[in-house]
Amino acid sequence: MQKGKRTPIATLGEFGLIDHLTEGIELKNPSSLYGIGDDAAVLHYPDKEMLVTTDLLMEGVHFNLVYYDLKLLGYKAATVNISDIYAMNGKPLQMTISLAVSKRFCIEDMEQLYAGMRMACEEHGVDIVGGDTTSSLTGLAISITCIGEADKDKIVYRNGAKDTNLICVSGDLGAAYMGLQLLERENAVFKGEKDIEPDFSGKEYLLQRQLKPDARGDIIKKLAEAGVQPTAMMDISDGLSSELIHICKQSNVGCRVYEDRIPIDYQTAVMAEEMNMNVTTCALNGGEDYELLFTVPITDHDKIEDIEGIKLIGHITRPELGYALVTRDDKEFELKAQGWNALTEEK
Amino acid sequence: MQKGKRTPIATLGEFGLIDHLTEGIELKNPSSLYGIGDDAAVLHYPDKEMLVTTDLLMEGVHFNLVYYDLKLLGYKAATVNISDIYAMNGKPLQMTISLAVSKRFCIEDMEQLYAGMRMACEEHGVDIVGGDTTSSLTGLAISITCIGEADKDKIVYRNGAKDTNLICVSGDLGAAYMGLQLLERENAVFKGEKDIEPDFSGKEYLLQRQLKPDARGDIIKKLAEAGVQPTAMMDISDGLSSELIHICKQSNVGCRVYEDRIPIDYQTAVMAEEMNMNVTTCALNGGEDYELLFTVPITDHDKIEDIEGIKLIGHITRPELGYALVTRDDKEFELKAQGWNALTEEK
Repeated sequence: MQKGKRTPIATLGEFGLIDHLTEGIELKNPSSLYGIGDDAAVLHYPDKEMLVTTDLLMEGVHFNLVYYDLKLLGYKAATVNISDIYAMNGKPLQMTISLAVSKRFCIEDMEQLYAGMRMACEEHGVDIVGGDTTSSLTGLAISITCIGEADKDKIVYRNGAKDTNLICVSGDLGAAYMGLQLLERENAVFKGEKDIEPDFSGKEYLLQRQLKPDARGDIIKKLAEAGVQPTAMMDISDGLSSELIHICKQSNVGCRVYEDRIPIDYQTAVMAEEMNMNVTTCALNGGEDYELLFTVPITDHDKIEDIEGIKLIGHITRPELGYALVTRDDKEFELKAQGWNALTEEK
Repeated sequence: MQKGKRTPIATLGEFGLIDHLTEGIELKNPSSLYGIGDDAAVLHYPDKEMLVTTDLLMEGVHFNLVYYDLKLLGYKAATVNISDIYAMNGKPLQMTISLAVSKRFCIEDMEQLYAGMRMACEEHGVDIVGGDTTSSLTGLAISITCIGEADKDKIVYRNGAKDTNLICVSGDLGAAYMGLQLLERENAVFKGEKDIEPDFSGKEYLLQRQLKPDARGDIIKKLAEAGVQPTAMMDISDGLSSELIHICKQSNVGCRVYEDRIPIDYQTAVMAEEMNMNVTTCALNGGEDYELLFTVPITDHDKIEDIEGIKLIGHITRPELGYALVTRDDKEFELKAQGWNALTEEK
């Protein structure tokens, strides 16, 4: 351990730490086209580009086994990596899975975990091609690397959004976050009381969104079929605000998002009301939706309008106009990234 | 967590668990040429094959921060992944690095860790192209994926060894294990006593082998220059016996290894004597050498003899002859895999 000066990691935050650590790293091989800074790295292999993305999930930080059964956890862990390949407009093809497990887990637990991962991989046509299994002194750690391919001219980065581009999202937002709130509330209510089952009736969609998210390969397919090439794209893991600001910063543009255009499911709205929360705040900052956020040229307006499951929520502006949210009553606020951040959050 | 039947993971062991979990998995994409079962997965991309290998290292299991400074740890973590690409006769090109860190680590610690990783990558011409940084409730977890390329007809698997092939190893064996013994002994002796420095004089090589192992890209280069194409190859991470038995099982052959041919450094022998250990046992089962173990056609005998740093230690036999070790006094024993196994070892 380093002696002398000790600066807490929280002072930099997750993205700051990555930037700091990777400062000055240069790509040297002709096959390394794009390194750190997007949803996936792009490696140049003749004819096709290869996409690589990786995630490390730690028990107690990324998941709580009070809520998750291990099959759902495996499904989700694989899905969120697959989602990153789609977010580059790529096709996921292979995955490696590494697990570190403590003694409180048994073979059947690992079977469940793996079954969930295999289910997600099968749904998306992904081959599991390697990995590592080892022990842990405490808890479960899951590391997944997903690899995919894309044609060079089809890859979508975060930095391509242009003034007047339309901002689009797939599906609806905030439900995964409300699902987590629901799980935490029911867990608190029934803690320690046996034979009482939590009441999730009428809120199944929220649970599903939290526990078994989709990776939106269907949207990637529809966009290709409609001949729409997004100018920038990300998947929404940390919340709409946070991701949109990423796109704007990396593209050096501003944005204008309309509150009444943000897609929210009925169950999300009901649950927010019950919990006395602002549903727009939940949709903007909730995270874990794994929907696609992307920008398209304004000339694609009609094509986008025709695709089911995609909503126009605003447009890209010149950078000096900042990041604006226009509310239902026509007031304007600055969008802020308040997404979940594993390294700055106090735990 | 699974209810009902609970079988401890130790009953299967590491390799058994992997086999069990991956049973029935099929490769479906044309680009997935070779999946689980070797040092790296082989993906088919036109003209060149891509090699992918991944490792997950957990504090307290794979490393002890009493012995390691973080820079050396980073160096070693990167090196052992790079070594896996060489073990396929490939060229490492890219790496992704994921870190989960608990609050007892600071930014400077992570800088040190990363500096070590970057040093190893620079030495081997590898670009760091991605990763993930997150928090952990306890300790440090490191997940690395290394990607490389090879020509299709040059890739060396574990299953290609043939009767009469010569068995070769690079460097010398057992020193990394003796280095660990040394560190543990000095730690026990001086525990709690301040101002007393452990005495490592005359044993620097053992420490270096444990703390800063090499990945033998130089050997891969020499083999190519000499026109030698190994028939099977692995890097030695779990001990010579264990790895050689892997090659034999996967190639369906036997082997015959001569004790007096196993390369052992002078410091390794001295330290074994001091600790009252059998030096051959250390060399056979010690692990963490990261030397290359490979087999070549007998017609390459003279070429191999001319390459510095490679030793012939025996030959491949028909499978019914088993795994034989011929001792200095011409007795014959069965080789057994007693290497370090993270999942069966009691901790």
